[in-house]
Amino acid sequence: MSITFKLDVLKPHQPNSPTLARALKQIEGVKYVNIRVEEIDQKTTSIIIFIRGNEGLLLDKIVEVLDGNNCALHSVDEVTIQDD
Amino acid sequence: MSITFKLDVLKPHQPNSPTLARALKQIEGVKYVNIRVEEIDQKTTSIIIFIRGNEGLLLDKIVEVLDGNNCALHSVDEVTIQDD
Amino acid sequence: MSITFKLDVLKPHQPNSPTLARALKQIEGVKYVNIRVEEIDQKTTSIIIFIRGNEGLLLDKIVEVLDGNNCALHSVDEVTIQDD
Amino acid sequence: MSITFKLDVLKPHQPNSPTLARALKQIEGVKYVNIRVEEIDQKTTSIIIFIRGNEGLLLDKIVEVLDGNNCALHSVDEVTIQDD
Amino acid sequence: MSITFKLDVLKPHQPNSPTLARALKQIEGVKYVNIRVEEIDQKTTSIIIFIRGNEGLLLDKIVEVLDGNNCALHSVDEVTIQDD
Amino acid sequence: MSITFKLDVLKPHQPNSPTLARALKQIEGVKYVNIRVEEIDQKTTSIIIFIRGNEGLLLDKIVEVLDGNNCALHSVDEVTIQDD
Amino acid sequence: MSITFKLDVLKPHQPNSPTLARALKQIEGVKYVNIRVEEIDQKTTSIIIFIRGNEGLLLDKIVEVLDGNNCALHSVDEVTIQDD
Repeated sequence: MSITFKLDVLKPHQPNSPTLARALKQIEGVKYVNIRVEEIDQKTTSIIIFIRGNEGLLLDKIVEVLDGNNCALHSVDEVTIQDD
Repeated sequence: MSITFKLDVLKPHQPNSPTLARALKQIEGVKYVNIRVEEIDQKTTSIIIFIRGNEGLLLDKIVEVLDGNNCALHSVDEVTIQDD
Repeated sequence: MSITFKLDVLKPHQPNSPTLARALKQIEGVKYVNIRVEEIDQKTTSIIIFIRGNEGLLLDKIVEVLDGNNCALHSVDEVTIQDD
Repeated sequence: MSITFKLDVLKPHQPNSPTLARALKQIEGVKYVNIRVEEIDQKTTSIIIFIRGNEGLLLDKIVEVLDGNNCALHSVDEVTIQDD
Repeated sequence: MSITFKLDVLKPHQPNSPTLARALKQIEGVKYVNIRVEEIDQKTTSIIIFIRGNEGLLLDKIVEVLDGNNCALHSVDEVTIQDD
Repeated sequence: MSITFKLDVLKPHQPNSPTLARALKQIEGVKYVNIRVEEIDQKTTSIIIFIRGNEGLLLDKIVEVLDGNNCALHSVDEVTIQDD
Repeated sequence: MSITFKLDVLKPHQPNSPTLARALKQIEGVKYVNIRVEEIDQKTTSIIIFIRGNEGLLLDKIVEVLDGNNCALHSVDEVTIQDD
């Protein structure tokens, strides 16, 4: 079973997207991370994150990593759970 | 044989989509759940749910889980039944 | 050999689409049924039905099941016959 | 070798598309028939026919079956001949 | 190695497209011919021809067949040469 | 390893595209050539060339063949290098 | 595990895209480089670079090669990390 989240997130200019992607990839069970920049403002960057992991991947754990990188979850746009 | 429903649903802000998706995934025979946020209003969120299960998956059972999560089924937009 | 019909149908609000889909799926030789809601009016719902079966699937038999569910065939939009 | 025709045809309301499709499918060597309704007028229906057969499938034979069903070939929009 | 031409051609109403397609298919080494009608005028029909053959297929040979069918090559819109 | 170039090129009306394509295909290591006509002016034709070869395919060699056919490289629009 | 970057970069007219692509391809672990020209101005060219490598491919190393070719990284538009 795998779970995929599409998240709308506000990121400060630092850390950059590759650093944030590597941090998210290190969460246990995560197999895929994609970060796409949507809009760059003066102090923040709007990003869309796709993150896929196994059954145990919890939103709380993702938010914890986002918080640790000064990012704020704006909304969960999509979630998919499927058998392998 | 499998059956797939596309449902238009009104959800309060709580529970969030991942929680609702996990609840729907636990219905017997369900193999796939996808929840996409369409529109966020002051008190409710319009969501589209795709849910696929085996032959025995009944709409009544899905509605029961939606009710238990304070969600209201607005309409069944699409249904597909096919042999495996 | 298989035959696929795309049908434009008027349905009363009852039975709902899943009930109608299960009734159509029970016609002998039917392998696939898809019902998509196009427009919901006060008393009726416009639906598009895709139904695929083996060579023996006749339009008359489909119309018989539609009639039995108080649905009216508006038009046959597409038909495909192909060797397997 | 196979040959595929895309034909623009005028059909009276009777016979209906499934009947015409079955008649075309019975031409020797025909493997695939698809009829799509483009426009319904008061007395006629504009349809697009895709028909694929083996090397020996002649347009004359198709027109003969169309004539026998009171249909008029308006134009040949596309033809494809290819080795298998 | 194969070569594919996309040709913009003016055709009189006779011969019809299927006849022209069969004539082009008989050129040595031709594996695929597709003729699509673009526009029908009073005396001529604008057609697009895709024709694919092996390495030895020359444009001159194609033009010879077009000439023999009273068709005029207007332009070569695309050509592709690739190893198999 | 293979390299693919997308080139924007000005071509006189002679040589025609098939002749130019065959000349480019004869460069050592070239596996694929596609020439698409973009615009035909009074004296020149704007063409887009896709050309793929193995690691040793140099732009200089391509330009040499273009020069030899009286064509002028206007710009390199895209280049892709990938492991096989 | 592989990592893919989509980068928005300003390039002087020299070096040309193929030269830059070959330089990026020589970074250790890089498997794919694609450079697409977006806009050509008087002194600079806006390009989009897709570059994919194995886990060890760092943005710093890419920027080092861009610097060495007088190119400036404008923004990281997208980054993807996935298990093989």
